[in-house]
Amino acid sequence: MPEFMDIHRGMVGITAEGLKEAHTADLAIQGEEGVNFKQAWADPESGLVYCLSEADSTDAVQRIHERAGHPFDEIHPVPLKV
Amino acid sequence: MPEFMDIHRGMVGITAEGLKEAHTADLAIQGEEGVNFKQAWADPESGLVYCLSEADSTDAVQRIHERAGHPFDEIHPVPLKV
Repeated sequence: MPEFMDIHRGMVGITAEGLKEAHTADLAIQGEEGVNFKQAWADPESGLVYCLSEADSTDAVQRIHERAGHPFDEIHPVPLKV
Repeated sequence: MPEFMDIHRGMVGITAEGLKEAHTADLAIQGEEGVNFKQAWADPESGLVYCLSEADSTDAVQRIHERAGHPFDEIHPVPLKV
Protein backbone atom coordinates (compact mmCIF):
# COMPACT_ATOMS: atom_id res chain seq x y z
CA MET A 1 0.00 0.00 0.00
CA PRO A 2 1.32 3.51 -0.77
CA GLU A 3 2.97 5.43 2.03
CA PHE A 4 2.56 9.14 2.74
CA MET A 5 4.31 11.74 4.86
CA ASP A 6 2.21 14.66 5.99
CA ILE A 7 3.28 17.78 7.82
CA HIS A 8 1.35 19.85 10.34
CA ARG A 9 2.67 23.31 11.21
CA GLY A 10 1.70 25.60 14.04
CA MET A 11 1.68 22.95 16.79
CA VAL A 12 4.03 25.01 18.95
CA GLY A 13 4.14 23.74 22.52
CA ILE A 14 2.76 20.31 21.70
CA THR A 15 3.43 17.84 24.52
CA ALA A 16 4.10 14.11 24.48
CA GLU A 17 0.60 13.63 25.84
CA GLY A 18 -0.91 15.94 23.20
CA LEU A 19 0.84 14.05 20.43
CA LYS A 20 -0.36 10.75 21.83
CA GLU A 21 -3.94 12.03 22.10
CA ALA A 22 -3.90 13.29 18.51
CA HIS A 23 -2.42 10.02 17.27
CA THR A 24 -4.97 8.00 19.26
CA ALA A 25 -7.79 10.06 17.73
CA ASP A 26 -6.48 9.16 14.28
CA LEU A 27 -6.10 5.49 15.13
CA ALA A 28 -9.64 5.32 16.48
CA ILE A 29 -11.16 6.08 13.05
CA GLN A 30 -8.39 5.26 10.56
CA GLY A 31 -9.94 1.90 9.65
CA GLU A 32 -12.99 3.64 8.21
CA GLU A 33 -10.83 5.00 5.39
CA GLY A 34 -8.37 2.10 5.22
CA VAL A 35 -5.55 4.24 6.61
CA ASN A 36 -2.73 2.96 8.82
CA PHE A 37 -0.86 5.66 10.73
CA LYS A 38 2.55 4.15 11.34
CA GLN A 39 4.49 6.83 13.18
CA ALA A 40 4.44 10.49 14.14
CA TRP A 41 7.20 12.85 15.21
CA ALA A 42 6.87 16.30 16.74
CA ASP A 43 8.96 19.35 17.58
CA PRO A 44 7.29 21.53 20.23
CA GLU A 45 9.63 24.43 19.50
CA SER A 46 8.98 24.84 15.75
CA GLY A 47 5.48 23.40 16.03
CA LEU A 48 6.11 20.84 13.28
CA VAL A 49 4.51 17.41 13.32
CA TYR A 50 5.28 14.72 10.75
CA CYS A 51 3.02 11.70 10.24
CA LEU A 52 3.90 8.60 8.25
CA SER A 53 0.95 6.57 7.04
CA GLU A 54 -0.15 3.87 4.64
CA ALA A 55 -3.30 4.52 2.65
CA ASP A 56 -4.92 4.24 -0.75
CA SER A 57 -4.72 8.00 -1.35
CA THR A 58 -3.85 11.37 0.12
CA ASP A 59 -7.60 12.04 0.32
CA ALA A 60 -8.11 9.13 2.71
CA VAL A 61 -5.37 10.46 5.02
CA GLN A 62 -6.82 13.96 4.77
CA ARG A 63 -10.31 12.79 5.70
CA ILE A 64 -9.07 11.01 8.85
CA HIS A 65 -6.87 13.91 9.98
CA GLU A 66 -9.68 16.41 9.39
CA ARG A 67 -12.29 14.35 11.19
CA ALA A 68 -9.88 13.87 14.10
CA GLY A 69 -9.48 17.64 14.27
CA HIS A 70 -5.97 18.21 12.99
CA PRO A 71 -5.81 18.84 9.23
CA PHE A 72 -2.31 18.84 7.75
CA ASP A 73 -0.58 21.63 5.85
CA GLU A 74 1.22 19.46 3.33
CA ILE A 75 1.15 15.82 2.25
CA HIS A 76 3.17 13.85 -0.27
CA PRO A 77 3.43 10.21 -1.19
CA VAL A 78 6.80 8.65 -0.34
CA PRO A 79 7.07 5.77 -2.79
CA LEU A 80 10.82 5.48 -2.23
CA LYS A 81 12.36 4.45 1.07
CA VAL A 82 15.84 3.50 2.15
CA MET B 1 20.42 10.67 21.44
CA PRO B 2 18.28 13.43 19.91
CA GLU B 3 16.47 12.66 16.67
CA PHE B 4 16.07 15.02 13.73
CA MET B 5 13.95 15.16 10.60
CA ASP B 6 15.39 17.08 7.68
CA ILE B 7 13.78 17.93 4.38
CA HIS B 8 15.37 18.29 0.97
CA ARG B 9 13.36 19.94 -1.79
CA GLY B 10 14.01 20.05 -5.51
CA MET B 11 14.90 16.36 -5.92
CA VAL B 12 12.32 15.93 -8.68
CA GLY B 13 12.82 12.70 -10.59
CA ILE B 14 14.89 11.03 -7.89
CA THR B 15 15.06 7.26 -8.42
CA ALA B 16 15.29 4.41 -5.92
CA GLU B 17 18.90 4.01 -6.97
CA GLY B 18 19.61 7.73 -6.56
CA LEU B 19 18.10 7.71 -3.08
CA LYS B 20 20.15 4.68 -2.14
CA GLU B 21 23.34 6.29 -3.47
CA ALA B 22 22.70 9.49 -1.53
CA HIS B 23 21.93 7.54 1.63
CA THR B 24 25.04 5.40 1.20
CA ALA B 25 27.16 8.54 0.80
CA ASP B 26 25.80 9.78 4.12
CA LEU B 27 26.36 6.45 5.86
CA ALA B 28 29.96 6.32 4.64
CA ILE B 29 30.94 9.41 6.63
CA GLN B 30 28.24 9.76 9.30
CA GLY B 31 30.47 8.24 11.99
CA GLU B 32 32.87 11.15 11.72
CA GLU B 33 30.21 13.43 13.21
CA GLY B 34 28.49 10.84 15.40
CA VAL B 35 25.38 10.85 13.21
CA ASN B 36 23.15 7.84 12.57
CA PHE B 37 20.88 8.17 9.55
CA LYS B 38 17.98 5.87 10.34
CA GLN B 39 15.65 6.20 7.40
CA ALA B 40 14.93 8.28 4.31
CA TRP B 41 11.78 8.66 2.23
CA ALA B 42 11.42 10.32 -1.17
CA ASP B 43 8.77 11.52 -3.58
CA PRO B 44 10.10 11.81 -7.15
CA GLU B 45 7.07 13.85 -8.24
CA SER B 46 7.30 16.69 -5.71
CA GLY B 47 11.05 16.28 -5.29
CA LEU B 48 10.80 16.02 -1.50
CA VAL B 49 13.16 13.86 0.52
CA TYR B 50 12.82 13.35 4.29
CA CYS B 51 15.67 12.00 6.40
CA LEU B 52 15.37 10.78 9.98
CA SER B 53 18.59 10.77 11.95
CA GLU B 54 20.08 10.58 15.41
CA ALA B 55 22.81 13.06 16.25
CA ASP B 56 24.14 15.42 18.89
CA SER B 57 23.02 18.51 16.96
CA THR B 58 21.50 19.84 13.75
CA ASP B 59 24.98 21.08 12.84
CA ALA B 60 26.36 17.54 12.84
CA VAL B 61 23.62 16.39 10.46
CA GLN B 62 24.19 19.45 8.30
CA ARG B 63 27.92 18.81 8.02
CA ILE B 64 27.41 15.22 6.85
CA HIS B 65 24.70 16.09 4.33
CA GLU B 66 26.78 18.96 2.94
CA ARG B 67 29.94 16.91 2.65
CA ALA B 68 27.98 14.14 0.96
CA GLY B 69 26.72 16.69 -1.56
CA HIS B 70 23.08 17.11 -0.62
CA PRO B 71 22.45 19.94 1.84
CA PHE B 72 18.93 20.06 3.28
CA ASP B 73 16.44 22.91 3.09
CA GLU B 74 14.98 22.50 6.55
CA ILE B 75 15.80 20.56 9.71
CA HIS B 76 14.10 20.25 13.07
CA PRO B 77 14.63 18.11 16.12
CA VAL B 78 11.80 15.64 16.77
CA PRO B 79 12.00 15.04 20.51
CA LEU B 80 8.49 13.58 20.58
CA LYS B 81 7.53 10.37 18.84
CA VAL B 82 4.47 8.16 18.93
